[in-house]
Amino acid sequence: MKRAYLDWNATTPLRPEARQAMADAMDISGNPSSVHAEGRAAKMALEKARETVATTMGAEGADVIFTSCATESAALLLEGREYAAARVEHDAILAWCDPALAVDAEGRVTVDDPGRSTLQIANSETGVLQTLPEGLAVSDLTQGFGKIPLAFNWLGIGAGLVSAHKLGGPKGIGAVVLRKGTELAARLRGGGQEQGRRAGTENLIGIMGFAAAAAAAQRDLETGVWDRIRELRDRLQADLGGAAEGVMFPGAGSERLPNTLAIVTPGWKGETQVMQMDLAGFAVSAGSACSSGKVHASGTLQAMGVSPDMASNAIRVSLGPVTTDDDIARFTDAWLAAHRRWRQRAA
Amino acid sequence: MKRAYLDWNATTPLRPEARQAMADAMDISGNPSSVHAEGRAAKMALEKARETVATTMGAEGADVIFTSCATESAALLLEGREYAAARVEHDAILAWCDPALAVDAEGRVTVDDPGRSTLQIANSETGVLQTLPEGLAVSDLTQGFGKIPLAFNWLGIGAGLVSAHKLGGPKGIGAVVLRKGTELAARLRGGGQEQGRRAGTENLIGIMGFAAAAAAAQRDLETGVWDRIRELRDRLQADLGGAAEGVMFPGAGSERLPNTLAIVTPGWKGETQVMQMDLAGFAVSAGSACSSGKVHASGTLQAMGVSPDMASNAIRVSLGPVTTDDDIARFTDAWLAAHRRWRQRAA
Repeated sequence: MKRAYLDWNATTPLRPEARQAMADAMDISGNPSSVHAEGRAAKMALEKARETVATTMGAEGADVIFTSCATESAALLLEGREYAAARVEHDAILAWCDPALAVDAEGRVTVDDPGRSTLQIANSETGVLQTLPEGLAVSDLTQGFGKIPLAFNWLGIGAGLVSAHKLGGPKGIGAVVLRKGTELAARLRGGGQEQGRRAGTENLIGIMGFAAAAAAAQRDLETGVWDRIRELRDRLQADLGGAAEGVMFPGAGSERLPNTLAIVTPGWKGETQVMQMDLAGFAVSAGSACSSGKVHASGTLQAMGVSPDMASNAIRVSLGPVTTDDDIARFTDAWLAAHRRWRQRAA
Repeated sequence: MKRAYLDWNATTPLRPEARQAMADAMDISGNPSSVHAEGRAAKMALEKARETVATTMGAEGADVIFTSCATESAALLLEGREYAAARVEHDAILAWCDPALAVDAEGRVTVDDPGRSTLQIANSETGVLQTLPEGLAVSDLTQGFGKIPLAFNWLGIGAGLVSAHKLGGPKGIGAVVLRKGTELAARLRGGGQEQGRRAGTENLIGIMGFAAAAAAAQRDLETGVWDRIRELRDRLQADLGGAAEGVMFPGAGSERLPNTLAIVTPGWKGETQVMQMDLAGFAVSAGSACSSGKVHASGTLQAMGVSPDMASNAIRVSLGPVTTDDDIARFTDAWLAAHRRWRQRAA
């Protein structure tokens, strides 16, 4: 059976450019901290990748610190700071924050004290985009980077965090970007790597894959790939909404990522839908994929005023640059057929 | 010019088996936390790799937690515990410990309170092996894993830490191994991965490379590859010691790793030697490579009673499974020639 992967906000297939860059990196034997020729070659590749990531983020001149994932980036930026956040944030943010910020019914967050707050640029479950207030301390840029135009230097924020595997890079590599010279105490200690902010031998293969993926994602953005994806997503929303009575699309009243559709069907459990769609050949998710083994109703939707019971009826469909018209047409048919069967059983 | 890489304790070239496993991993598109078929395939690959790493460490039934490097493993096991350690440990260990343990002139450490102490199994600079006392809390197994037979379950210790890139795996992946069910609070939070001990989407490509490299290293151990390396190292020591007056080999009176030779030549700076050898086509190091940008005399040698000035005259030569007789013969010639030139200038 031909499968369609529609869970790009959870993780993405590796881009061919990343694969090639990683194969190249595998030939570099040195440790970037070594002073001999092999070490210097590794260091040069590392710094070239750092520059690429900075450029693609519009963060020329800012500091880019590589980490092992967005979760580590969040901990590095947020631990011990007690910033305010909204309950729409990823658990890796909420782990360190005071979930005090208000969220409206369309998922938009109000920030009271930007210098003491963190706010995501885009929500992984609904795609809702936030307007980041000037002077915001930290933003989780993970779901935006690579899908929407983004320039760190123009955002007016102190620091951002990103992850490679959300834009076609490998899992296990992330970054923090912050205004040049911002103080940041290392959580990993015992080495001078990453300007003393993150000890540990650098994941050169992952970093080179990240840089290549970020560059490819940038090209996709420039060539309008996501405009096509937006049309597909909007068509999917219209087709499901037109045919399935009572279905809701949380966040659809806000500006959203071009690829994300949250779907709530009152009374039809998201987990059930995910399993049925999986059997039919489609990978979608119920909420965020980042909590291994845990099944709980979306905190994002509840923050938007959806009841816990109703939030458990949500699925997320998230498209990628290679998603085709056919993928979406087949998914639409499969979901509507499953929906009809569910209605018949429920009747 | 044909180069010889003799800095395997800093990092190792990627093993072909690891390269192949990583290429395979690149075809796995799912997130191990996702419940659909793509996610389950990723999860299965992850758990298979975990089992391989456990088996190769002789840690069947113990918990293996993947991290981004030995430095992270050290922080996870040691932060906030104030364990006692000796100054021969890596900086990533010393960052969290009380450097109170005594070291003798041959590099052997005396542990007073095993349950409140950490002790490396092998030193990266001298290769000196330690006898781990029963009940030791934590051991840095990084330099031993893959070079000497090692069985976590027989060591009688609470926890160990290892790194992939010291045995032919990729940089940017490490692990903690600990007795099943040992409590360990996560430093990275906001996801249930790694049994709740380490949040963040797993570095599947790195992890699969790690497992393949560990399995290949295990085969090398079983087929006697390191016996040949030990002979080469011993011949190098004998040839340099026989021809260069006054040269010393710290730790040579102890049991050592088969691949490591620390060389101290009174009055001849290690940094100078490293640069001259680099120009001659050989990658060796002066002390540990893990402190980017920092040049300081070896703490390990000073802990053994060598003066700071004398310690700055050290280099480390570390061999790997593919190091040839010819590599060592050429290095011996090149080093002795440089040594003669230095003596003439100094005279």
